[in-house]
Amino acid sequence: MSKYLASRLSNLVAYTPGEQPDKDKYIKLNTNENPYPPAKEVTDVLTEVAPNLHLYCDPACKALTEAFCNYYSINKEETLFANGSDEILALCYMTFCEQSVAFPSISYGFYEVYSDLFCLDAYKIPLTADFRVDKNDYFNLDKTIIIANPNAPTGLTISLSDIEDILNTNKDNVVIIDEAYADFCDVSCKELVKAYDNLVVVGTFSKSRNLAGARLGYAIACEALIEDLKRVKNSFNPYNVNMLTQALGTASIKQDEYFKNCISKVITERNNFIRQLDKLGFSTLTSGANFVFTTHCKFSGEELYNKLRDRKILVRHFNKESINNFVRITIGTPEQMKQVSKALEEIIL
Amino acid sequence: MSKYLASRLSNLVAYTPGEQPDKDKYIKLNTNENPYPPAKEVTDVLTEVAPNLHLYCDPACKALTEAFCNYYSINKEETLFANGSDEILALCYMTFCEQSVAFPSISYGFYEVYSDLFCLDAYKIPLTADFRVDKNDYFNLDKTIIIANPNAPTGLTISLSDIEDILNTNKDNVVIIDEAYADFCDVSCKELVKAYDNLVVVGTFSKSRNLAGARLGYAIACEALIEDLKRVKNSFNPYNVNMLTQALGTASIKQDEYFKNCISKVITERNNFIRQLDKLGFSTLTSGANFVFTTHCKFSGEELYNKLRDRKILVRHFNKESINNFVRITIGTPEQMKQVSKALEEIIL
Repeated sequence: MSKYLASRLSNLVAYTPGEQPDKDKYIKLNTNENPYPPAKEVTDVLTEVAPNLHLYCDPACKALTEAFCNYYSINKEETLFANGSDEILALCYMTFCEQSVAFPSISYGFYEVYSDLFCLDAYKIPLTADFRVDKNDYFNLDKTIIIANPNAPTGLTISLSDIEDILNTNKDNVVIIDEAYADFCDVSCKELVKAYDNLVVVGTFSKSRNLAGARLGYAIACEALIEDLKRVKNSFNPYNVNMLTQALGTASIKQDEYFKNCISKVITERNNFIRQLDKLGFSTLTSGANFVFTTHCKFSGEELYNKLRDRKILVRHFNKESINNFVRITIGTPEQMKQVSKALEEIIL
Repeated sequence: MSKYLASRLSNLVAYTPGEQPDKDKYIKLNTNENPYPPAKEVTDVLTEVAPNLHLYCDPACKALTEAFCNYYSINKEETLFANGSDEILALCYMTFCEQSVAFPSISYGFYEVYSDLFCLDAYKIPLTADFRVDKNDYFNLDKTIIIANPNAPTGLTISLSDIEDILNTNKDNVVIIDEAYADFCDVSCKELVKAYDNLVVVGTFSKSRNLAGARLGYAIACEALIEDLKRVKNSFNPYNVNMLTQALGTASIKQDEYFKNCISKVITERNNFIRQLDKLGFSTLTSGANFVFTTHCKFSGEELYNKLRDRKILVRHFNKESINNFVRITIGTPEQMKQVSKALEEIIL
């Protein structure tokens, strides 16, 4: 830390992303990436874009916005793209948070980092004993609220009617629903933005759309909220989504069969893997995401993490009370999950 | 504006980027892009990266950092990359500014936008009557200082010894030198970071490295300042430079001959064009950049802008007192500049 660091940031602790080791050394199931690469028809657009890279990209992402809004039946004034959904979240914090923000105490770690970065009071709401988000804890909060649905790292979802109850009791503040994993279940708030002027839905192309390395996230909300977000985005980094990523995103929307096929493969494999875990005596939370959150009575989470790591399988363990005994395992290909099952069998038996 | 916009931002006015019209309709000389596409050897890497796009990019940009630091003979702890130099500037504001920031009143428009976004007092220092940055105005300011060198839109440079005087009289605050255009002249502070622990040098791959559409910017500073910037970057958007851009940047460093050749072509054309302007009675400031800032006694800047636009040539006019009579013209290819000269001849004569 230099003496020049702004004093308000002296205690800031940055987010710790999951390890990114040499991909050939491990079966990498620690950062919830899609195990399948993007469709060839998607990456083919890179060659078309390449000769124009000396020119600026379109700050309004017009072609991408059109393809996306047609697909999801939303108006083009109701969406904004950014450099990953992390940037969307940061823009939401900058745009809508006055003094405080509320979120589940067990959730995406970045919610707390942003509240520190932007010097906000973080109101961390405990989960229930069975790791659920209880809607009653979120009524009439008078704070910006952010909830991941499905939640991470639990994978549990809350219902749309619960979310509507939260929206209806928080008319004076924005409620952000982070749907990074929503394509792996059947719950999305996208359509609620027509009915609620205090709702921001956040999504990403990193998980279900096989494009983590390209960085593309979005917000969907009523026109007035998107206008606010755009004002901040254009005051922060107008050209935030580069030309290649815009083209990849547009092409991804058009490859609908590939998109749905990858999701379906992941869901099938998730369900198979949970059955394997059951047989080995694990308790696994119901997952609406592309990962499972699981625990075994004979081993701590750290032990499981280390024993898998010894077998060249990388999963995620969170050193946090109440979830200390769990590991989060991303769903990979059937071949990868077969190896994980085999490794767990060795460890347990 | 919605009722949910944070009250501190109610007067925020976003940055206005230069128009990005259909590129086939205009000779586009309004946003200081390089007229030459990146080398084929650079864009070829896109095909190599494409099959890995479902995985996250390296948040530490290791390969890019290594190539860059070798090339410029700096330590890898002395540099940080971001999603364009705009993001680097935003990170600098977040990291180092406490309450106020000082910059030339005529300079890159974003400096003022950032001071509004981050609720800082902006101390705008007028240029001299001949549009120069006078070092004496920047001594002992007790504020974060930011100076573009060459300055935009004037194109004028200040000397390294002037910058050292500013650094030496501002030991308690950070001085940011924005070198977006520095490759088009012979003045760079990169080596001064070894001697000054309060200097941040900002640069971009958008101009001299033909990659505006890929978004890649960097900061060079002593290790302690870079560590501060990294802490904020990793609290804002750890995966901020995507996989494709990292690969393009790395490849660009390796194509040194192409890089130098493009710069040399632009400088030659800039000098030719200024001679043409002289013949037509224009007064043009000495340019160290890939654009010229020029004025004619018979026409306002707006008239010149409009008359060029009528002839399908897009340049930039700033509606700001004291530079109202100027236009900024990016240096394009020899063919493009021939057409601009011809158009100006028609307009003037």
